[in-house]
Amino acid sequence: MSSPVSQPSATGPLRLTPQASAALRPEAATRITGGFWAERRLVNERASIPQGPALLESAGNLHNLALAAGKTEGEYRGDLPFLDSDVTKWLEAAAWQLGDPSTDDPTGLRSHIEELTALLAAAQEDSGYLNSWFQVVKPDQRFQDLRWGHELYCAGHLIQAAVALHRTTGVKSLLRIAVRFADHVDATFGPGKAVDGICGHAEIETALVELYRETGEHRYLDLARYFIDRHGHGLLNTGEQHGTAPGPAYCQDRVPLRKARNVEGHAVRQLYLLAGATDVATETGEGELREAVVRLWDAMTATKTHLTGGLGARHEWEDFGDPYELPSDRTYCETCAAVASVQWSWRMALMTGRARYSDLVERTLYNGVLAGVSLDGERWLYVNPLQVRDGYTDEGTDQTSRRTRWFRCACCPPNVMRLLASLPDYCASTDATGLQIHQYATGSVSAQLAAGPVTADITTGYPVDGRIALTLTGTPDSTPWTLSLRLPHWSRTYSVLVDGEPTEPLVEDGWLRLHRTWSPGRHIVLELDMEARLTRADPRVDAVRGSVAIERGPLVHCLEQADHPGGGLDDLVIDTERSLRSVFRPELLGGVVTVEATGHRGTPPGESWWPYAPHDDTRTTASGELTLTAVPYYAWANREDGAMRVWIPTG
Amino acid sequence: MSSPVSQPSATGPLRLTPQASAALRPEAATRITGGFWAERRLVNERASIPQGPALLESAGNLHNLALAAGKTEGEYRGDLPFLDSDVTKWLEAAAWQLGDPSTDDPTGLRSHIEELTALLAAAQEDSGYLNSWFQVVKPDQRFQDLRWGHELYCAGHLIQAAVALHRTTGVKSLLRIAVRFADHVDATFGPGKAVDGICGHAEIETALVELYRETGEHRYLDLARYFIDRHGHGLLNTGEQHGTAPGPAYCQDRVPLRKARNVEGHAVRQLYLLAGATDVATETGEGELREAVVRLWDAMTATKTHLTGGLGARHEWEDFGDPYELPSDRTYCETCAAVASVQWSWRMALMTGRARYSDLVERTLYNGVLAGVSLDGERWLYVNPLQVRDGYTDEGTDQTSRRTRWFRCACCPPNVMRLLASLPDYCASTDATGLQIHQYATGSVSAQLAAGPVTADITTGYPVDGRIALTLTGTPDSTPWTLSLRLPHWSRTYSVLVDGEPTEPLVEDGWLRLHRTWSPGRHIVLELDMEARLTRADPRVDAVRGSVAIERGPLVHCLEQADHPGGGLDDLVIDTERSLRSVFRPELLGGVVTVEATGHRGTPPGESWWPYAPHDDTRTTASGELTLTAVPYYAWANREDGAMRVWIPTG
Repeated sequence: MSSPVSQPSATGPLRLTPQASAALRPEAATRITGGFWAERRLVNERASIPQGPALLESAGNLHNLALAAGKTEGEYRGDLPFLDSDVTKWLEAAAWQLGDPSTDDPTGLRSHIEELTALLAAAQEDSGYLNSWFQVVKPDQRFQDLRWGHELYCAGHLIQAAVALHRTTGVKSLLRIAVRFADHVDATFGPGKAVDGICGHAEIETALVELYRETGEHRYLDLARYFIDRHGHGLLNTGEQHGTAPGPAYCQDRVPLRKARNVEGHAVRQLYLLAGATDVATETGEGELREAVVRLWDAMTATKTHLTGGLGARHEWEDFGDPYELPSDRTYCETCAAVASVQWSWRMALMTGRARYSDLVERTLYNGVLAGVSLDGERWLYVNPLQVRDGYTDEGTDQTSRRTRWFRCACCPPNVMRLLASLPDYCASTDATGLQIHQYATGSVSAQLAAGPVTADITTGYPVDGRIALTLTGTPDSTPWTLSLRLPHWSRTYSVLVDGEPTEPLVEDGWLRLHRTWSPGRHIVLELDMEARLTRADPRVDAVRGSVAIERGPLVHCLEQADHPGGGLDDLVIDTERSLRSVFRPELLGGVVTVEATGHRGTPPGESWWPYAPHDDTRTTASGELTLTAVPYYAWANREDGAMRVWIPTG
Repeated sequence: MSSPVSQPSATGPLRLTPQASAALRPEAATRITGGFWAERRLVNERASIPQGPALLESAGNLHNLALAAGKTEGEYRGDLPFLDSDVTKWLEAAAWQLGDPSTDDPTGLRSHIEELTALLAAAQEDSGYLNSWFQVVKPDQRFQDLRWGHELYCAGHLIQAAVALHRTTGVKSLLRIAVRFADHVDATFGPGKAVDGICGHAEIETALVELYRETGEHRYLDLARYFIDRHGHGLLNTGEQHGTAPGPAYCQDRVPLRKARNVEGHAVRQLYLLAGATDVATETGEGELREAVVRLWDAMTATKTHLTGGLGARHEWEDFGDPYELPSDRTYCETCAAVASVQWSWRMALMTGRARYSDLVERTLYNGVLAGVSLDGERWLYVNPLQVRDGYTDEGTDQTSRRTRWFRCACCPPNVMRLLASLPDYCASTDATGLQIHQYATGSVSAQLAAGPVTADITTGYPVDGRIALTLTGTPDSTPWTLSLRLPHWSRTYSVLVDGEPTEPLVEDGWLRLHRTWSPGRHIVLELDMEARLTRADPRVDAVRGSVAIERGPLVHCLEQADHPGGGLDDLVIDTERSLRSVFRPELLGGVVTVEATGHRGTPPGESWWPYAPHDDTRTTASGELTLTAVPYYAWANREDGAMRVWIPTG
């Protein structure tokens, strides 16, 4: 029995045009109705997102817009030029949430959206310009400080919010504001126009492509391509003294993207730019740009990506760092960079059809992104280290390793909100031959294939267990098509059953392909090996040499102080010859599988005042056998403050 | 035959009062006339110091003082409030250089000193106040921004320069300027005075103690103690938004020094403060302060010191970092911090009499300090990493890993200049029982002991070889006294000969004590074991786990790209079972001993796009046996740009 497909074209953050050069299309409507991600998304819907308006009010963002609108008086609050983007990112999150069929808007998102839209409309100038910082604080300097001004960055987030709201609800009010600003930007920027320049913080590029997709206005795609092309020519590197400001790589303005050999500079800027470049490459089909983003993604993952998917190794200038510079303690791994990585990799997955991109999406979602928000959805991490030492000092900045209620620079919380609200759209795709399942979650998927409409229900305890069961509730029963299941790159063994019969699917570049004529009611089970495992790093990652990490399925685990009384974590050693034991603990951290390992405490060699000693003076064992208990990294920092480490020394 | 002692009291940076509570006194006059340090000091005298005035002119420092003096017109150059201190640190260096008996002033230091002194005198206000930044740019804000203003910091460097010039030449003109400023500060700061506060950058504390020692004015010691005492009470942590500025630890304003458990915050600020605190403890004899500096020194060396003696693990806020946070690549190790560490440790050595402090002085001089200046004395490093990767990107800031002609913030070059110019004063001391030799260099030492006047000549090829020969040219020949030679803490074997006869000296807390009745002409030889050795770190230093460093004598060695053609340094592995070979290479880098080790290149495990792999998937050997050539760290970055590493993976 086949059911009608109500959503023939994409309703999520990406809606490719028919002529886009993409191997896959995001035109499978996915719902997540149970299991791991349903729980995390429920917290997002019921705790994180609803708190947004009050937090934006108390932090001053709404006050600043009201100042720009002439609706209130007083001083501008905060000294950052991009505070409007916190508002529009929240609006985007709320819009995606409203688009979830299971949402009946219990927290009153619609009225908040209307209120904020009215505020933005009131603040917008006749020209279309909208940026409360410049309007209120520096009215005569707009579009003059492109390196730090963030005006186009804010325009991009406005556009993304407007597209989301229009796409999910059909509401046009915010889209009108966005289009007016986009037209103002288009009238201002470009060859022969008032400004030949780029924004120091990429973001508008990907937004403009989506606005093109939403409105059909080719000008927006052209403008996005212009901004991509103009990066890398040193346009932004003027007027500042040598020695204080970062170089042009900070803003991806050192080398044209098509010639770049690796990602560099400010991680979030680089990733947003690459998402936009991939959008442009997808829509234009340009080979050189396509090759560049493929090359840069491979270089980034091979040399600048943490085990958690975290990106950006340096605090200073929020920089990617050099190849293999991946410290556990002082890495930055901004939550926004993880969100941006998911957005970019999903675009790469669609453009190329290769599974590795969704492998990184999975790893980053379960680790790098999810660690950014507390289990209760109310506290955040801006940076996501892989180690907090026993002697950690909390300096109380945004970049602390302790969870914080909100940030002075509050980019990360609404970024997580918008990603979790739109998460179903990252789970499945279609192509001419069939349906691809990228991410595994309990729910349903429906798509209009060339062979006919397909619907399926998915049930899984993933990632607690590795059994993913898919039942075809609707399928053409005479035309064959291909069901493709992503085989995670961490997987060592797996099995596939169709109606209980073992099957050997075609394994193709990370995909398990089942090509056949299907009939409704067919039951496909993918069983992944969820045995806990020890992982080591490329030896060029100096920071974690002589250490292993514990992983289980897509989850990176970590040791936390709370599970290791009687001492700190700095002197723990793992015995890699002993087996790992996985234990489901329903009472712990919302229900997690802990991995237990065997280890001991060591004592250092040498004199007490000098921490270096002859090579052959090795440390001795200072304790008997200890059980090391590793919890999923995403759940860290949800108990008392203390040390944490992902990488555990082996001797 | 005894020779007359011309300098009965100290002529270097420290001149303890008779009542000071110090185990040792810096009242041995040392000359360095040959060998390693004579060469480095000659470069300092003939290349580095003479370039100062022209560089200060072209960088704007002198222009700014001329502006303050009303002698020129134009804009203030540079946007830093402490540019005057570059001038006064250079003056201090020039003054110490003039104090060297071997200097006949071939580069015209005297006239430059007169010129700059006249400029400072002209810029000084009637009140005594002197700071070109505030006088020219923010005349109504003096002593209001204590956290960032650096006014007392600049006063401190002025005082130190003035004391140096007065002590070495008797010239009073600069001292009068310093005294007027010090009196103005004393009239302004203190309980019940206009300002109850401290400077965000410590420095004036140690300067005031020395001004007390030079002038006998007890007020200056009291003021120094007041500043020490007022640190740690959050006086500076006001008015700035949470999230942007560093916390109070940055300025050592989080916890009172007497209660602190470890060094923290901005490394140079912390070290200057501790030097001042040690000065105060030495002059007042206060037990609690003395215990605090002893405790903090031990904690610093045990948990926050690199093998090179480098200090300050973080680029952001130039911070010490957490215990055991000692990355090789992104460590800061500011050259100024190494200089400050030498200054503090020397004070500790004198106060306590323990050899470990001079052990750190030696290590830091030969490695952390000396790497800061090129072999030709004309190019500098602000930060001193222990690793530069193959893929290093030079962003061109002051904090680059490439040598630079001068810096926007040019604190480091004149700091090295003043230390090298005053280096003889860190070499020897006296106490009631005899003479202590702390650092080994060819030259002479003379001192007035209780037993009578002593003079000695020292000849050594140290650190190329380990033979230190001391001939007593003058000594009382009826009263016994003790000659103490520091036994470096890295030393494994050694021998002592007196007139060719093997002797077993008393070994006491790092000292070799020879107590006897001496006669002129006695010849003492200390032979240290200079065999190259492999060193490992405390396993809590995560950054260098599974690696060893090559050391030889006091020198840390490193691999440089220039010696390893045919590949980079990132994939090199050392075979620790193979022996090391020391080779003197007179033509290389001014003449160095290289240490050759055996190793190979490895290839990483795993997939090409993902740098993590199962624990049991280890890398294989990709090359046959290679010779790894390690040069002294102080000499790195004197050839073509390239990778460098101190710590070498063992597998």
